[in-house]
Amino acid sequence: MTIDFWFELSSPYSYISAMRIPSLEKKHGVKFSWHPFLLGPFFKTQGWNTTPFNIQKEKGDYMWVDVARRCKKFNIPFSRPDVFPVNSVYAARVILAAAQESEELAVKTTLFLYKLYFQENKDIGNKDLLSQCLESNGMGHLSEAIHSPEMKERLKKATDQSNQLNVFGAPMFFCDGEKYWGDDRLEDLLADINS
Amino acid sequence: MTIDFWFELSSPYSYISAMRIPSLEKKHGVKFSWHPFLLGPFFKTQGWNTTPFNIQKEKGDYMWVDVARRCKKFNIPFSRPDVFPVNSVYAARVILAAAQESEELAVKTTLFLYKLYFQENKDIGNKDLLSQCLESNGMGHLSEAIHSPEMKERLKKATDQSNQLNVFGAPMFFCDGEKYWGDDRLEDLLADINS
Repeated sequence: MTIDFWFELSSPYSYISAMRIPSLEKKHGVKFSWHPFLLGPFFKTQGWNTTPFNIQKEKGDYMWVDVARRCKKFNIPFSRPDVFPVNSVYAARVILAAAQESEELAVKTTLFLYKLYFQENKDIGNKDLLSQCLESNGMGHLSEAIHSPEMKERLKKATDQSNQLNVFGAPMFFCDGEKYWGDDRLEDLLADINS
Repeated sequence: MTIDFWFELSSPYSYISAMRIPSLEKKHGVKFSWHPFLLGPFFKTQGWNTTPFNIQKEKGDYMWVDVARRCKKFNIPFSRPDVFPVNSVYAARVILAAAQESEELAVKTTLFLYKLYFQENKDIGNKDLLSQCLESNGMGHLSEAIHSPEMKERLKKATDQSNQLNVFGAPMFFCDGEKYWGDDRLEDLLADINS
């Protein structure tokens, strides 16, 4: 059974899911297929120029409390980043380039990028910083993806596909024709699969 | 330990919490204090003329699927109402009148109104229908609250208080200075209390 996992690098709840999925796969004997995409284009269709968490201050303030609580609950390190949302375009291209090599490298790269952003407060939207971080982690060859027309096109296609699937938030999961939104629905999804 | 439970009669997730709370109180040895209020005035401060579930179609469509799933999970009867959102002003006034008699009657009345709306597809925003339903359930005397200036004022005060508390959605729970949003955070809240 494969579960499609659509994630945004800028999304705190996607980060939590990404950190949880490897152990959930082992525990439940399921497989996740990782799909990076951009939420920004969907936000624009709603007339928003940024994440709703910044547009609605009360909701945004609460979100950070809730994210810290969930990270504590699951023993996931977390540090609120100074830059939010982050420009996730370049980092998402890097993941797509890694995916061309192997799925394993794509997952490893995703977790690496998430740790940079949500644990080490690194602005992964900064191309130079992103390149340096990849370099010092032995992934320097992936930096080419930042400016790759092919990866730009792939990311555009992935984002178009997310719109066709009505992915209006992240993380979003699809399994057996059913849609689940949010890290807080992962257990329900897994229970439904096993029922 | 008392948990403040802020709910909107029009809110599907508040309905689920209302249906779950009586058994959670017994199971966890905690007490909930029920606070009806109106979300509409907050929505207006955001420039919305209705619930975001209607403004954002994709999110709204998903919400109904998610609500049906949660009701199934907790064995709660559910039927999607034709009128959404419902005008909850009169029904909320009725609950406040019941609360003047006793907390027990307020909870009983709340559950009765929620069942009318989310199980029997009754438009509880229709004053005549609301009166009839109260009458045929032996609660006819509460109908006076629909037009009571005192209950109107009480509901306004409760809604003002919700704004002061930054209640930007429903259900919202407060306990020991902490805020929890959503029926899906009830278990976390109860776990945090016991930790």
